[in-house]
Amino acid sequence: MSGDFQSGDWKSLREEAFEANLEIPRRGLAIYTWGNVSAFDPGRGVFAIKPSGVAYDDLRPESMVVVDLDGKIAWGKLNPSSDTETHRVLYQAFAGIRGITHTHSPYAVAWAQARKPVPVFGTTHADHGAEEIPCTAIMGPEAVKNNYELETGNLIVETFRQSGKEPLHLPMTLVAGHGPFTWGDSAAKSVYHAAVLEEVCKMALLTLSIAPDAAPLPEHIIRKHWERKHGPGAYYGQNSCLSIM
Amino acid sequence: MSGDFQSGDWKSLREEAFEANLEIPRRGLAIYTWGNVSAFDPGRGVFAIKPSGVAYDDLRPESMVVVDLDGKIAWGKLNPSSDTETHRVLYQAFAGIRGITHTHSPYAVAWAQARKPVPVFGTTHADHGAEEIPCTAIMGPEAVKNNYELETGNLIVETFRQSGKEPLHLPMTLVAGHGPFTWGDSAAKSVYHAAVLEEVCKMALLTLSIAPDAAPLPEHIIRKHWERKHGPGAYYGQNSCLSIM
Amino acid sequence: MSGDFQSGDWKSLREEAFEANLEIPRRGLAIYTWGNVSAFDPGRGVFAIKPSGVAYDDLRPESMVVVDLDGKIAWGKLNPSSDTETHRVLYQAFAGIRGITHTHSPYAVAWAQARKPVPVFGTTHADHGAEEIPCTAIMGPEAVKNNYELETGNLIVETFRQSGKEPLHLPMTLVAGHGPFTWGDSAAKSVYHAAVLEEVCKMALLTLSIAPDAAPLPEHIIRKHWERKHGPGAYYGQNSCLSIM
Amino acid sequence: MSGDFQSGDWKSLREEAFEANLEIPRRGLAIYTWGNVSAFDPGRGVFAIKPSGVAYDDLRPESMVVVDLDGKIAWGKLNPSSDTETHRVLYQAFAGIRGITHTHSPYAVAWAQARKPVPVFGTTHADHGAEEIPCTAIMGPEAVKNNYELETGNLIVETFRQSGKEPLHLPMTLVAGHGPFTWGDSAAKSVYHAAVLEEVCKMALLTLSIAPDAAPLPEHIIRKHWERKHGPGAYYGQNSCLSIM
Repeated sequence: MSGDFQSGDWKSLREEAFEANLEIPRRGLAIYTWGNVSAFDPGRGVFAIKPSGVAYDDLRPESMVVVDLDGKIAWGKLNPSSDTETHRVLYQAFAGIRGITHTHSPYAVAWAQARKPVPVFGTTHADHGAEEIPCTAIMGPEAVKNNYELETGNLIVETFRQSGKEPLHLPMTLVAGHGPFTWGDSAAKSVYHAAVLEEVCKMALLTLSIAPDAAPLPEHIIRKHWERKHGPGAYYGQNSCLSIM
Repeated sequence: MSGDFQSGDWKSLREEAFEANLEIPRRGLAIYTWGNVSAFDPGRGVFAIKPSGVAYDDLRPESMVVVDLDGKIAWGKLNPSSDTETHRVLYQAFAGIRGITHTHSPYAVAWAQARKPVPVFGTTHADHGAEEIPCTAIMGPEAVKNNYELETGNLIVETFRQSGKEPLHLPMTLVAGHGPFTWGDSAAKSVYHAAVLEEVCKMALLTLSIAPDAAPLPEHIIRKHWERKHGPGAYYGQNSCLSIM
Repeated sequence: MSGDFQSGDWKSLREEAFEANLEIPRRGLAIYTWGNVSAFDPGRGVFAIKPSGVAYDDLRPESMVVVDLDGKIAWGKLNPSSDTETHRVLYQAFAGIRGITHTHSPYAVAWAQARKPVPVFGTTHADHGAEEIPCTAIMGPEAVKNNYELETGNLIVETFRQSGKEPLHLPMTLVAGHGPFTWGDSAAKSVYHAAVLEEVCKMALLTLSIAPDAAPLPEHIIRKHWERKHGPGAYYGQNSCLSIM
Repeated sequence: MSGDFQSGDWKSLREEAFEANLEIPRRGLAIYTWGNVSAFDPGRGVFAIKPSGVAYDDLRPESMVVVDLDGKIAWGKLNPSSDTETHRVLYQAFAGIRGITHTHSPYAVAWAQARKPVPVFGTTHADHGAEEIPCTAIMGPEAVKNNYELETGNLIVETFRQSGKEPLHLPMTLVAGHGPFTWGDSAAKSVYHAAVLEEVCKMALLTLSIAPDAAPLPEHIIRKHWERKHGPGAYYGQNSCLSIM
């Protein structure tokens, strides 16, 4: 695990991952060492990820671990996050993403523990995804025994494939009984989506508490909100062409 | 969108809008770039509003955009908030208001997503409005296609007209499936009403969680609380004649 | 309302009230100008109270208003809190109290809006009162018309008298449809009880959300917790004889 | 209670207890003086514990009280926490623990007041204990009269014995109608478990609010999460052999 690493190697990728990881405690998305963010460089086929079990206060850019798409450590002296294999599977399967975030934020975890997809109850949700946020199935005993973290990635990929969901259009999911995984076109954007998901999950839970039979937003409003931010004629923000990622 | 603007133009209006926008993150009424506040100068027929998709930390008085009542940009180099048309309709229809706030605060959004008006359960509510806070209908496909943000304004205006509500007496509403819009006699007052609405929505949800069949406050107490703050004999505060706005 | 006041008059009483009022925003018990605390000097028959409608950030010891037991202003240039008459009635009726706090903290307001007494579900409650926290009846139209704030005080006094509750043993109540009033042997202690009441109300609501039919603590444990803090053989804290107030 | 104590006595044990007690307000686990942490030195058979009824802001390492396993004060001028006897019983019965924390954090208290064990709804829970978190029975009148705090300890020990739970594998419990007690191989670790328990209790309550009939995590996932952190082949964190304590 140790190595003759040069301190300048993968510097900007590690710094991107480092900065994004610090957003987790800043946004209140996890306590202690829970949660992790990675930043991916598709050209070189490596990602920088948080080391396992290290408190956010103790993180430094040089404590990030760089892992390649075969799962081998390319740089770093610490153990990478125990969820590294999940990140690796997602980078391989979801072309175009460059950052992944996993947290244990309480409202997203609650939906994951309830094993329910989050309906599109309003425009806050539709602004970031034009469909319900899926929740995977519970993983079976064989997959758990085989390679749990890798199979967690497979479960997410399978959930998107079976439901025909496009990961570049819906940058978030819930893993049943576990919690949220989100992604984006940068590490920072993946944490942004983690914060959005937590807020959307909180709003959805509160909505059900007022109206247990609340109806989803009709499709014509979902589409409108999605397209004003992400469609070809998007007009939200300062650029003519915004992408969700 | 660019122009030969003088930096001193609309300075105090832009500063008023700028300061009021900063209250949104300070009061925890929205995360990231969500939400927007405008300040209206009825004499000159223009309002200053937050630019679209800019983070609160990056806002400056000179990033505000000044828009006239025809929807044309009178000053500023950035795109105005995507909700600008909603603000414009309300300034045209609700004579006397000088500031408007839109947020995605979670409890107000939950009531909007539940598509329910907020009953007057207590004096905190009655101090700021002597009637339930309405929730608009869901907008139909035609209106969405036509001009979504302008029609959102029309929907609010129509909701107040049909129910005979007086916007100067009830400075807040919920847009179904979306979230809260509030107003006041200044930009600052409109944000104040956004914070009040969030607190009232939270209290109402918690009330239902204890007593699902909770009864509204009787009319004689609602009237009393409203009038001690806003009636002709108002005695709350330091002035003999306070207005709600 | 103005007067030829000496700046040194009632200095320590005003400072006690001032400091206790600042605890309201520090403890998150109310937003903006909501809520008020008074400090009572029984020897001289006056109390210092927050001025009406002034933001906590703008409060100074010299903005406190000193009112006597006949309701006349003994010192100060500002209007006293609109709830001043409620404080006055309580100081007259509840011998031994020296501070009163009124807030709009959300969980206590929710119970008041649900118009339900708070059962003794646990020891956090029993440590501060050996019985359920009462909620008054809704005030009738005559009383509201007569003198609303004075009648609010009468309602609290009547609630305690009818139920045989001893205000020195249970320093808190809910006013139906309105919110909490608490008291103590100092202004600071009355705010402490406001924070305790909010926490107890939150815990009780969460308890019902897990177990809608939750049973109150049995009497032998309620008594034990009360007495270890307040009985003749009290052994909590650093003094041999602690009082609840 | 006073004594001819040397200021250097038990210095590191008192400092460990002092630092751990400060984590209670930092993590928002209790307000005012509520809650207490102790640090145990098994070699010398003493533990340092928070004094009774002292605010966290006023705590110093020298205000900690050192108590031996017979319940006698070995060092310190203040009264120890009123819960000292509970700590003493647990140190005697649960071999291997070196720190104990008691708080009144609201979600853990809610489950204790609901008198329900917390099911293992997800991996956040399973990471810290492979079984439901038990809730004791309500203490009977005899035990309360006998020695309440000592009997609270006995109740916890009895709950673990009867259910065959291993305190080194499940470092937390709820005392019915009261609140949480947690422990660990250091005072700091016991506070960590108090924060974990609060988060797990919050997540479980939110889960039930979405799905009142939510199912526990299947055993094969519970085991996996437990073992990747605490089993012989644990691979979470930076050490090859991590213990839960």
